[in-house]
Amino acid sequence: MIDPSSPASPVRAGSCPLPQESRDCIALSHGGGGRLSRDLVEDVFLPAFGNPTLDRLGDAAVLPAPSGRLAFTTDAFVVQPLFFPGGSIGELAVHGTINDLAMCGARPRWLSAAFVLEEGLPLATLRQIVDRMAAAARDAGVPIVAGDTKVVERGRGDGCYITTAGIGEVDPQLSIGPERAQPGDAVIVSGPLGNHGMAVMSVRQGLAFESTLQSDTAPLHGLVAAMLEACREVRVLRDATRGGAAAVLNEIAQASRCSIWVDEQALPVDAHVRAACEMLGLDPLLVANEGKLVAIVPPADADQVLHAMHRHPLGGGAVRVGDVAAGRAGKVLLRTPYGTHRILPIPLGEQLPRIC
Amino acid sequence: MIDPSSPASPVRAGSCPLPQESRDCIALSHGGGGRLSRDLVEDVFLPAFGNPTLDRLGDAAVLPAPSGRLAFTTDAFVVQPLFFPGGSIGELAVHGTINDLAMCGARPRWLSAAFVLEEGLPLATLRQIVDRMAAAARDAGVPIVAGDTKVVERGRGDGCYITTAGIGEVDPQLSIGPERAQPGDAVIVSGPLGNHGMAVMSVRQGLAFESTLQSDTAPLHGLVAAMLEACREVRVLRDATRGGAAAVLNEIAQASRCSIWVDEQALPVDAHVRAACEMLGLDPLLVANEGKLVAIVPPADADQVLHAMHRHPLGGGAVRVGDVAAGRAGKVLLRTPYGTHRILPIPLGEQLPRIC
Repeated sequence: MIDPSSPASPVRAGSCPLPQESRDCIALSHGGGGRLSRDLVEDVFLPAFGNPTLDRLGDAAVLPAPSGRLAFTTDAFVVQPLFFPGGSIGELAVHGTINDLAMCGARPRWLSAAFVLEEGLPLATLRQIVDRMAAAARDAGVPIVAGDTKVVERGRGDGCYITTAGIGEVDPQLSIGPERAQPGDAVIVSGPLGNHGMAVMSVRQGLAFESTLQSDTAPLHGLVAAMLEACREVRVLRDATRGGAAAVLNEIAQASRCSIWVDEQALPVDAHVRAACEMLGLDPLLVANEGKLVAIVPPADADQVLHAMHRHPLGGGAVRVGDVAAGRAGKVLLRTPYGTHRILPIPLGEQLPRIC
Repeated sequence: MIDPSSPASPVRAGSCPLPQESRDCIALSHGGGGRLSRDLVEDVFLPAFGNPTLDRLGDAAVLPAPSGRLAFTTDAFVVQPLFFPGGSIGELAVHGTINDLAMCGARPRWLSAAFVLEEGLPLATLRQIVDRMAAAARDAGVPIVAGDTKVVERGRGDGCYITTAGIGEVDPQLSIGPERAQPGDAVIVSGPLGNHGMAVMSVRQGLAFESTLQSDTAPLHGLVAAMLEACREVRVLRDATRGGAAAVLNEIAQASRCSIWVDEQALPVDAHVRAACEMLGLDPLLVANEGKLVAIVPPADADQVLHAMHRHPLGGGAVRVGDVAAGRAGKVLLRTPYGTHRILPIPLGEQLPRIC
């Protein structure tokens, strides 16, 4: 059920009076760097995100010297609606950046968060987003240590956009990258595909699947740590976000100049996701995930890695779906149940805009 | 002169055909994580920003181990128009984050950049922004090593928003922060105030001052390095962006529980900026700067710091404008030419929305 007064439709409903008259909505002055900006930081951001580094409110966060090499990444989040079954833009903004760090084998250490808010966004909605972000960061053990907020006029945004950046520490002994896939390697996916994208679509389209479809948004650094403990030779890790598993597999095939053969029947897709995809004419392989990864590991280690994944809460559905091969460099090929195969092309663009 | 076909009004003019039919404008698919996203990266971002780290296009950039503590910061940029006399959103996005790092005495090392583009933005406009960003990063010696791009529908953005994050290395012997100001300390500003804000306003309002007003956008890390070479005991550094010098001075007074006395006549303001401010009823002390800093230094070192600033291209106009005092904790007081004084309050919000 979609309630028009729900946080999913925060802005369009009404108008917001002058900031002097009301503290209920975001006003342009909240982005002005003056007293209202400070109020927003002190009333909304610090109570949720607060930690000794952020609380100093310096121009930059000063952090202890990390050990070894750094991983550094950024992601912008523009998902619409802001809230969906299983998550919100807040969880995505935390998990997405943590996952980018985890995919190069880094231990995520610190996050920054920058908000572009639309004038008229109810403060209550912002608080909900910020609280979910804070909970996600706390659960993942990665503090938000720096931030910024800007406000744009009504009709120049869509409630709330969030950009996070993250710093991680890279284990010097690891060497993970899409170019490292080799013929014979095993291809593993960590669980059912397409849940995030279809959960967001279910809200947008008012599908009956809404109650059963849930985003898979989750921080994958714990799962990656378990995999790396089982096998230091993991060759490739990629989270299958925009463009879905199809984009990731194609990227690996191209970077490694190998082909990737995937058994279509082995690909895990939940029944509700498959049904929703069929109804909307979408391919679950092209739908975004926010808590699933594709791994390429040496064949001798595949069982050990799968075993480690199965013992982790986020890897219970992990399966080996295919292999890397020489020849047909750069192509991804799906083996069909009929003994034939077809090329899985790189998608032109996400089938579903603003999915993350 | 404002030309309606200029890059300052990139989106509203016309419509953009389907991406298959044209490569001239940003389409939703450019943000989809598929082939068009990759084309955008390869055709626009890599040629401009390219460096060995970014070129790897990993989920995260892997960087060498830094020496000592880290500084980490982020800033969102939503300036309107995108281009203005003396700069663009591209320079602001690079300089703003570099300056935040420099203000805690850090040596800026790496930047990330995330773009939220509005459907219909001409690719030529994006290229111009990206080229200016790349030039600013190159001139400052701070590479852009990670990035992301999202696209939102027409009417859900305003051409281009950019969020940058930055990592710097902090000299372990420095201790700089607004709480460190002490009674007797000298207050220095690095040059004329209000130029950035009035340059942007001149374009918005079509003022005749347009030809003479220029944004002061500049990276301040070189100036800070020169100041720190002259005096390791610099107590506070703050760039006077949103909220202008008034916001920064109030923040320092509050954090240090001192008062700050400023000689109104000593405050440097260019004649054209003063005239434009008078015409629009604005106070130059409250107008944003993008290349000016406020420094608090021990009184014995003030002359030496000023001397070092005057020898740097960005500190030629540096002047001592006042002193820190005990009593009236948290207040900023302006000494007027008439021998009286008045309180300079913290601004409620920026007088000029979307100035950075």
